[in-house]
Amino acid sequence: MLKDKSELSRTELERLGEFGLIDHLAEGTKLVQPSSIMGIGDDAAVIELKNRSILVSSDMLMEGVHFDLAYTPLKHLGYKAVAVNVSDIAAMNGTCSQITVSIGLSNRFSLEAIDELYEGIWQACAHYRCDLVGGDTTSSRAGLVISITAIGSVESEVLTTRGKAKLHDLICVSGNLGAAYIGLQILEREKQVFLSDSEMQPQLEAYEYIVGRQLRAEARTDVVAWLKEAGIVPTAMIDISDGLASDLLHICKQSGVGAKVYEDKLPIDATTKDTALEFKLNPTTVALHGGEDYELLFTVDQENHAIIEGQSEISVVGHITDASQGATLASIKGDMVELEAQGWRHF
Amino acid sequence: MLKDKSELSRTELERLGEFGLIDHLAEGTKLVQPSSIMGIGDDAAVIELKNRSILVSSDMLMEGVHFDLAYTPLKHLGYKAVAVNVSDIAAMNGTCSQITVSIGLSNRFSLEAIDELYEGIWQACAHYRCDLVGGDTTSSRAGLVISITAIGSVESEVLTTRGKAKLHDLICVSGNLGAAYIGLQILEREKQVFLSDSEMQPQLEAYEYIVGRQLRAEARTDVVAWLKEAGIVPTAMIDISDGLASDLLHICKQSGVGAKVYEDKLPIDATTKDTALEFKLNPTTVALHGGEDYELLFTVDQENHAIIEGQSEISVVGHITDASQGATLASIKGDMVELEAQGWRHF
Repeated sequence: MLKDKSELSRTELERLGEFGLIDHLAEGTKLVQPSSIMGIGDDAAVIELKNRSILVSSDMLMEGVHFDLAYTPLKHLGYKAVAVNVSDIAAMNGTCSQITVSIGLSNRFSLEAIDELYEGIWQACAHYRCDLVGGDTTSSRAGLVISITAIGSVESEVLTTRGKAKLHDLICVSGNLGAAYIGLQILEREKQVFLSDSEMQPQLEAYEYIVGRQLRAEARTDVVAWLKEAGIVPTAMIDISDGLASDLLHICKQSGVGAKVYEDKLPIDATTKDTALEFKLNPTTVALHGGEDYELLFTVDQENHAIIEGQSEISVVGHITDASQGATLASIKGDMVELEAQGWRHF
Repeated sequence: MLKDKSELSRTELERLGEFGLIDHLAEGTKLVQPSSIMGIGDDAAVIELKNRSILVSSDMLMEGVHFDLAYTPLKHLGYKAVAVNVSDIAAMNGTCSQITVSIGLSNRFSLEAIDELYEGIWQACAHYRCDLVGGDTTSSRAGLVISITAIGSVESEVLTTRGKAKLHDLICVSGNLGAAYIGLQILEREKQVFLSDSEMQPQLEAYEYIVGRQLRAEARTDVVAWLKEAGIVPTAMIDISDGLASDLLHICKQSGVGAKVYEDKLPIDATTKDTALEFKLNPTTVALHGGEDYELLFTVDQENHAIIEGQSEISVVGHITDASQGATLASIKGDMVELEAQGWRHF
């Protein structure tokens, strides 16, 4: 991170050309899914997913908007780009089996840099057992663009949308919230320190966990597997990319229900809390609006209460109410605060 | 084209924000395919394609690399972005049923501009009967980025790859070649005229056909339908995006064969020929290397000769030879010229 790359070897992309680069990337790509009939190398990939509902999700990451290469190692970026797409498939209670990756590159990038990016992509593919089956490589006039489509499937009976949460359902969230956002604040701070004095080395040891949550997101495929094992089909599910508040409001809107969340139930890691206070930020605000957690937010029927309680990775943070009551946070002090959406305002 | 847009109404994207823009685009999106179970509005789209092989193809178009907004109307651009992806599915002998569209936008674009782009996207979806089921919208620091993934299917028995052309097969091509490339030369020339004197209006009437081939590409789904009707399963197929020479070499490489193409059999439209000569370009070179034709190049067993001959939209341009003979062009003069690949060298 922030390291001097001048000593690394560099192969210019123009030496390879389009077909050379495609061949190079195809060579490193291994298929492991029986459903991947054909991968890279024809006009389209061929997939066989018999008797299951097919899930498709696309995400685009832009340099300078979604990531800053000053503190994002390319390998981590490649891993995260795959993980966030796998997370969308997980949020439908499904399993990702294939991805396509399209990248736009400027000649600022060498072949070695692309290899680092794909190292992360392949590592994520291996971890999530999904195959890279196609995509596109093109040049970009400005900055790196990564566009990924994830293809997965789910048994139709357990497909979980955002639209079927019902009165009295428990609102559950996996892992903890706000770490990725507060990790980003650390990275931005260290970048400013580095820019003002390049002799200064970033001090990240104490923040390893939260910085890791920002740089190397993981999709909670383990939670989907656990739900299946426990015999629980959530009534609604979404992955937390914009923050608990925004994403819970999506469930409320699409299910036609309200929600009540309890501040004291929000799972917040100790380092997240301490670092938020260091930045003079309210840890609850960070947990509600931080975003990029990629934890799963889901609702289950009350009858599952005991099973859910026994699972340490899942917290019950509230319950579904009537639509007329809106979506509210019951604060520790006892106030009721209305939850508000905060999408990005990049434009 | 090249028109003054100052008089059009303009709605800033920041007024809508991310969720507003997504809602706005989702409203305009209609689903017509029975296989589209759920479209925009959840973490992933849901598709049911029973007992067919699924085809997936992704393409990314970047402003300043793949298109120039100085002479590309946004509506045409949207249409073309879909058509080139549908073309990839057609080249597998399949049918596209769904697409996802991810766009990167700067605040240079107004809501009206985005609507124009989506007007073209929706028009292409209606024409090819494929549903827009998802995607991503994000801001871009530099220019417009359009990344599309097409999802389709094919009965496994008629799936056509690039890899099964065999000795003596006929090499066939739909429509005519080189028009899109020569149309681009016209547009570039008129842009230069306009830049040097903005009072000059572009003179495009005489070139309407070739300019149309550049700006508004069509996927040859009609050829796929005709092949099915005629009971012909090509041994290999590819769509011509890089030019006949490059794309035929892909078939040769993947099938382990050679090819012989006859210069006098190449289908070249009269306007293409005349305009090539006007630019002091060899029409044969334009037909072989022009690219962006999105015609289908395919090989069939000789027994289909009579049926193919009866179809005016398809030309037999040569035949498959032994790999040892390479891929060659028999010129009108009687020379044998080796065919060479020319991918892009954007970097």
